Amino acid sequence: MTQQGAGHQHIVKAFSEELEHLAGDVATMGGLAESMVSDAVEAVVKRDGRLAEDVVERDKQVDTYHRDLERQIIRLLALRQPMATDLRSCIAALKISSDLERVGDLAKSIARRVRVLNRSEPVALTKSVERMARLVQSQLHEVLDAYATGEIERAVGVWERDDEVDEHYNSLFRELITYMMEDPKMIGAAAHLLFVAKNLERMGDHATNIAEDIHYVVTGKELTAERPRGPRPEAPE
Amino acid sequence: MTQQGAGHQHIVKAFSEELEHLAGDVATMGGLAESMVSDAVEAVVKRDGRLAEDVVERDKQVDTYHRDLERQIIRLLALRQPMATDLRSCIAALKISSDLERVGDLAKSIARRVRVLNRSEPVALTKSVERMARLVQSQLHEVLDAYATGEIERAVGVWERDDEVDEHYNSLFRELITYMMEDPKMIGAAAHLLFVAKNLERMGDHATNIAEDIHYVVTGKELTAERPRGPRPEAPE
Repeated sequence: MTQQGAGHQHIVKAFSEELEHLAGDVATMGGLAESMVSDAVEAVVKRDGRLAEDVVERDKQVDTYHRDLERQIIRLLALRQPMATDLRSCIAALKISSDLERVGDLAKSIARRVRVLNRSEPVALTKSVERMARLVQSQLHEVLDAYATGEIERAVGVWERDDEVDEHYNSLFRELITYMMEDPKMIGAAAHLLFVAKNLERMGDHATNIAEDIHYVVTGKELTAERPRGPRPEAPE
Repeated sequence: MTQQGAGHQHIVKAFSEELEHLAGDVATMGGLAESMVSDAVEAVVKRDGRLAEDVVERDKQVDTYHRDLERQIIRLLALRQPMATDLRSCIAALKISSDLERVGDLAKSIARRVRVLNRSEPVALTKSVERMARLVQSQLHEVLDAYATGEIERAVGVWERDDEVDEHYNSLFRELITYMMEDPKMIGAAAHLLFVAKNLERMGDHATNIAEDIHYVVTGKELTAERPRGPRPEAPE
């Protein structure tokens, strides 16, 4: 930045406003993605095809936010050429927006299964899915709060609790396989519920990614190195 | 950039070298991810637990590339403050590196299932998975070539062929459900193969994302708006 004095002050003020605007958009996008997750799961539990369609429709808004944020950030990088914390904030917003876009996709994918699920009898394990969904929703909510407030301990808390999400997924996987074996005519529906559970587990991973990004913005250091991570539970036995 | 004359020339040359270095690292990372995909599928088909472990191990290298690229790019953005095409190249490299990191994760997730799959009889549909994998591998290879050469038509070709990947996935999903119903003792193994197929389908999506990024770098325009996309096949019926 070459401007000095009053001009410089003006530019600095406008830039911090732009960064706030960026963070505001990320927060709004996060709220949208959160509402998609809770409604998608409600649509599964209540067999509500209408609500499911609404979730699918809402994903377009999330995608629009994602594209707009990307454009805003690239423009900011080009025009403002931010350094240090400001640069980290821009890059983190870019990454968090990608994570939220994926959360929206995963919620849409859950909602898309409602129509198929409604064609068969209700799967008995829907309640377990609901419990897992509540945990994932609280993780998402907590990490978005941590982003808004910059409270690093809350971000780290989300990161640490991802193991609980994985445990839920692993036990649900086993339960669904047993259920399929006991009642082969329910295999199709249970397979769709298997993917619903997997999608929720992936959302948990995205909440974890966001926690890492917050840690990086605030401290300038990466969180990944601190916790020796066990094998991911993607191949439960 | 405020430098002039010889100093300016020097900076410009060094920057284009840095961008080339960046692209080289993305290409190497892509090659690694590609090899993980083909070896993970080979490990499933040949029931080769050793090869599977090797794939899991190799994912650490991909993750290291991802982290290094991110650091390199943030450093470049901070120090060089690139504009226009150069800025787009940096942002695209950041995004492509994320996509390749996910491809590596998905290959690792496939490899992790080999141990469980080897405990049951072979699933008859492994050949269909292999066919789908070949298509996905060719998509990845083609899009990485398009990235290296900047050939936009090849990137668009990859983007258009994603439908074929989706069709493979949908028919495989149906076949696996039928297979489970006919032979309930194979349900566990077939469920793992269902996730293998899903992971391959996701890799296809990442190849498509990379194609979009290449299009954006070369033309400055987004590819997404051009093709009205049908519903994603995540809830096959």
